[in-house]
Amino acid sequence: MDLNDRSELRITSLENKRLQRLLQQKIDSQTKPFGALGILEDIALQTGLVFKTTSPKIKKPSLLVFAADHGVVESGVSPFSREVTHQVVLNFLHEGAAINVFAKNTNLRLRLIDVGVDHAFEGTLTYWIHHGTKVQSRKIAMGTQNFVQYPAMSTADAERAIDTGKKLVEQEKEEGCNTIGFGDIAVGNFSSGLAISCAILEKDAEEVLKIDPDNIPLSQRKIVEVVNKALRTHPKTHDPLMILTLYGGFEIAAMVGAILRAAELHMLVLIDGYIGSVALMVAQRINPHVADYCIICQHSGEDAHQTVLDHLKKKPLLNLKVNIGEGCGVALALPIIKNAVDFLNGMTAFNDVISPKPES
Amino acid sequence: MDLNDRSELRITSLENKRLQRLLQQKIDSQTKPFGALGILEDIALQTGLVFKTTSPKIKKPSLLVFAADHGVVESGVSPFSREVTHQVVLNFLHEGAAINVFAKNTNLRLRLIDVGVDHAFEGTLTYWIHHGTKVQSRKIAMGTQNFVQYPAMSTADAERAIDTGKKLVEQEKEEGCNTIGFGDIAVGNFSSGLAISCAILEKDAEEVLKIDPDNIPLSQRKIVEVVNKALRTHPKTHDPLMILTLYGGFEIAAMVGAILRAAELHMLVLIDGYIGSVALMVAQRINPHVADYCIICQHSGEDAHQTVLDHLKKKPLLNLKVNIGEGCGVALALPIIKNAVDFLNGMTAFNDVISPKPES
Repeated sequence: MDLNDRSELRITSLENKRLQRLLQQKIDSQTKPFGALGILEDIALQTGLVFKTTSPKIKKPSLLVFAADHGVVESGVSPFSREVTHQVVLNFLHEGAAINVFAKNTNLRLRLIDVGVDHAFEGTLTYWIHHGTKVQSRKIAMGTQNFVQYPAMSTADAERAIDTGKKLVEQEKEEGCNTIGFGDIAVGNFSSGLAISCAILEKDAEEVLKIDPDNIPLSQRKIVEVVNKALRTHPKTHDPLMILTLYGGFEIAAMVGAILRAAELHMLVLIDGYIGSVALMVAQRINPHVADYCIICQHSGEDAHQTVLDHLKKKPLLNLKVNIGEGCGVALALPIIKNAVDFLNGMTAFNDVISPKPES
Repeated sequence: MDLNDRSELRITSLENKRLQRLLQQKIDSQTKPFGALGILEDIALQTGLVFKTTSPKIKKPSLLVFAADHGVVESGVSPFSREVTHQVVLNFLHEGAAINVFAKNTNLRLRLIDVGVDHAFEGTLTYWIHHGTKVQSRKIAMGTQNFVQYPAMSTADAERAIDTGKKLVEQEKEEGCNTIGFGDIAVGNFSSGLAISCAILEKDAEEVLKIDPDNIPLSQRKIVEVVNKALRTHPKTHDPLMILTLYGGFEIAAMVGAILRAAELHMLVLIDGYIGSVALMVAQRINPHVADYCIICQHSGEDAHQTVLDHLKKKPLLNLKVNIGEGCGVALALPIIKNAVDFLNGMTAFNDVISPKPES
């Protein structure tokens, strides 16, 4: 990664007073009471600004699902064992995961990218490339190190993961996609996301989780202990790349790169739940304007997500208590986003004539 | 309306312990963490019970949009004049309304029914029947009476409106539809809905609106005054048919009949926002099991809606501050409902084999 990107600020603010005024006029001129489409009007405005047009259209929406393993799982933070990551990947390739069902219903193009699963399924992946879903191996390592003891990854590997995310977004853009979402398949990455949240926000685990330190629920004790221990073990830093390196997640690092590049390319960025929001928070430390390009598709239902959303000053579109990863929130929210964008072009404006003529 | 329906209770409770257990087993056997699909799992369970199967499918979903005028508009309760109702109808027929855009994106079949618009557009309606959207004139009168002075409609007209809703649902069912939503185009019907809410819940307008009687916002003073005056004018009654007769809305009465009949026919019922929820509340007084068949698609954002939702013990699926009527919430929620139902059939179950074989 060229660290000079940070000073160049190639992702610019969407502030464009003239376009914003034109878009708002167009929104208000549709045949509906003022403001009656609520949050859909906000999305229409945002999308117009991202695409730099008063007639935005969602084109070839894609979902990149990044899969990777986490060394911290060996510390007992997840109810699932490490093998579940590659089993979920295989299920996804069989089109048997929830995201396969939802994406098919929504015409969302699916791409699965192995950035660090601890399983040698190269052959299988090559095979499945022919089955509709595009699958790519960009494996950086067989999972991260356990961040309680070691940095999750090397700086070079963090940069490779970020670069992988960027390249993949460029591929999608070249194929005509202007709207891109991100998902994750990665057992144990809640802990990784929590550690990153703590490091970025300079809070301890209890604060991010919004729990009383004197009354930690049994189910969260291990995660709190492990994350707080890791935060004491590693040096405090404000450097987002260093924070990624320490607490990892190859899938999170790839998402950070993907979010940054998608915004640079003026694409609309669809963030799933907690992990995507954590990646956005890291990306925002690299470029403060990046969140302007993003829609948070759903609330994961976790208090840690609320903490991150408060920091990002973002409200999620859906709150269906769906907490499954895989980018499911992106697929669930996409039809609403399409409707929000399409009302700008499909509705009658007040100044159009409304008077049906009988057929001759 | 055959008032004996009330004692017969032809709509039965969906309580079916065996089917419920089988559905829950199927939901829990899908390849996902327990409960991870949140509210989608609740919808899958409900839909299975409504359709009496462990493999539910949404078939030919339709939206009936009922249009009618309200006499109470002459008391100055709406920022819009009475003519706006027929203008919105014409816009709808031009496919220029928000619901036209959303329904097209979602493959939701649209039907517009004039049950009481104060405009003689019979010819126009006949013309538009040929344009994809099915339009029917079932006009009962040129709008209701002003309920501040008179009953909104006669008992005979209320029964005709209810019967119209029932017949239309039967038509849809005969065409293979198993999922039906309802919308409204009716300037002034917030006041009608509010008066019905007050009468059913035995509260005054301020209580339903959740406002301080000593500090009523300027924008709501007229509505509060008009509705409270009407409540003092007419006799108190617990009879849902009498309440409909007094405070009207031909579109609300038609929705009540439609909801009752759809539940009798074991159809899944999609309620839009406040007006649909008021109709459901009336229907529930006629048959207490009817709400089991309904999904509230969206929160209208109004406190009066929350009052009704609390009474119904129902949570809306979406909360996007969309408050436009026309059944827009139904169209926005339908893709999520389809996803909720389809994961039951489309996902891999844990006991299926997951091991891809190379192509021969």
